[in-house]
Amino acid sequence: MAPVKVFGSAAFTNVARVLVCLEEVGADYEVVDINFPTKEHKKPEHLARNPFGEIPAFQDGDLVLFESRAIAKYILRKYRTDEVDMLRESNPHEAAMVDVWTEVEAHQYNKALAPIIMECLINPTAYGMLTNQKVVDDSVAKLKKVLEVYEARLSEHEYLAGSFISFADLNHFAYTCRFMETPYASLFDSFPSVKAWWEKLMSRPSMKKLSANLRG
Amino acid sequence: MAPVKVFGSAAFTNVARVLVCLEEVGADYEVVDINFPTKEHKKPEHLARNPFGEIPAFQDGDLVLFESRAIAKYILRKYRTDEVDMLRESNPHEAAMVDVWTEVEAHQYNKALAPIIMECLINPTAYGMLTNQKVVDDSVAKLKKVLEVYEARLSEHEYLAGSFISFADLNHFAYTCRFMETPYASLFDSFPSVKAWWEKLMSRPSMKKLSANLRG
Repeated sequence: MAPVKVFGSAAFTNVARVLVCLEEVGADYEVVDINFPTKEHKKPEHLARNPFGEIPAFQDGDLVLFESRAIAKYILRKYRTDEVDMLRESNPHEAAMVDVWTEVEAHQYNKALAPIIMECLINPTAYGMLTNQKVVDDSVAKLKKVLEVYEARLSEHEYLAGSFISFADLNHFAYTCRFMETPYASLFDSFPSVKAWWEKLMSRPSMKKLSANLRG
Repeated sequence: MAPVKVFGSAAFTNVARVLVCLEEVGADYEVVDINFPTKEHKKPEHLARNPFGEIPAFQDGDLVLFESRAIAKYILRKYRTDEVDMLRESNPHEAAMVDVWTEVEAHQYNKALAPIIMECLINPTAYGMLTNQKVVDDSVAKLKKVLEVYEARLSEHEYLAGSFISFADLNHFAYTCRFMETPYASLFDSFPSVKAWWEKLMSRPSMKKLSANLRG
């Protein structure tokens, strides 16, 4: 069987969201680099894969997908086994908790954390822009409140959705990894259960391997 | 069996995202109003349902959920029949297309459209603030580009995920409905396939019924 293809660079967080799932399920895959400086992502060949001209895109035979979270779910469904079942769709209550904390990542956690990465790491290096400290300060304040909720949750449950690792946890990998490069990484020290959860995730072979490739 | 409970007001878009699913599957449900002016959503009883102090929250027996998209998926799974199968999880390719366009709603469509609703409808009436026209203009420009992609998709497929109605379509109901109250509603006239899709959705009994309750 031909390996599935991921279009994008492993250095990008939304590509890594897909790659961590492929690593966790042990799938055979190929990363096809899309050259940003030459705007390859805006050319017709890539627009046919992703009409919004973004990365990643994904191909499995005739099936072409975009949107990293949708690609990730397809992968986790396709390669699901009794041992590696990250969506838990056969158990409605477990699946619901996976969905809740997957949505929390998108709409609470990432919304607070991503602007800090953008302002501290990406804007200064990729675009030669100064860090907007007001955006950083507001986002750090928001992130603290989000981490309070995570601390309460993770002090009672080993993983976000319950006693089992799931897509909800994997989803936090790439952005948190980059956040740990910012001057605000020590924020996690105030939340011991969150920190222990993060260290447990980062000890997984998938995340050890991929974290080396992540950069702005 | 006791009806499931939705905590929030039917006037709010994210509550309506849940209600439209309950109507589509024909579930027995009760809306428990959460009083915003008295900040009931920030009180311990509601924080126990939703630790972020937002609406909606949801209860089905012992199971308590939050995040509207996660609640919606739980409902669509629980009440799934061969006739009403809005997630298509038994068909990996169809499920993937539902997921792709569900993510597009969250990360492309809603991101462009919601600020227009906020600036034109909610800020002036609920908070006595002036409309920030720059935000509106930027969002309208983004929305046009998103609608170009939707037009291409819907000129080839009856619904977003393919030939079948799905959660991806339902998800557009509440915000689009409110958008149609803004001075920019005529934007849809330039996209005939999008407009036809929207009118077909709005002819469904679920949406006819709920649209009357939506307001800022």
